[in-house]
Amino acid sequence: MKNITLNVEGMSCGHCKAAVNGALEEIEGVNSVDVNLDTGKVEVSYDEAKVEEAKLKDAIEEQGYDVA
Amino acid sequence: MKNITLNVEGMSCGHCKAAVNGALEEIEGVNSVDVNLDTGKVEVSYDEAKVEEAKLKDAIEEQGYDVA
Repeated sequence: MKNITLNVEGMSCGHCKAAVNGALEEIEGVNSVDVNLDTGKVEVSYDEAKVEEAKLKDAIEEQGYDVA
Repeated sequence: MKNITLNVEGMSCGHCKAAVNGALEEIEGVNSVDVNLDTGKVEVSYDEAKVEEAKLKDAIEEQGYDVA
């Protein structure tokens, strides 16, 4: 299991948090997600054998947010 | 049909707009809803015989926003 912290821009409210959280959690191989709305930091714990970091970033961007 | 404009505080993104819009549109007697995210103004057209203004405000507040 690998842990990364992504810096996400544009999340402004609880709906945004839920959108990012939900998009990541539904990915096969993602173990846990923690979204901090104040800092924009999104911590993801995932199985490197099942999912690549790029896919996590894509999922966030698909929700309409930029990953710095 | 009556038209009112409510001043709503705290809507920050498209999810917020959708939440307020959806909560109002599902009320019996509401004809149309227009949410302006930039100004916080929510225009509602509704049938006074079917719904009171207080119910519209309550629906917005239930979504987590203040009606000024």
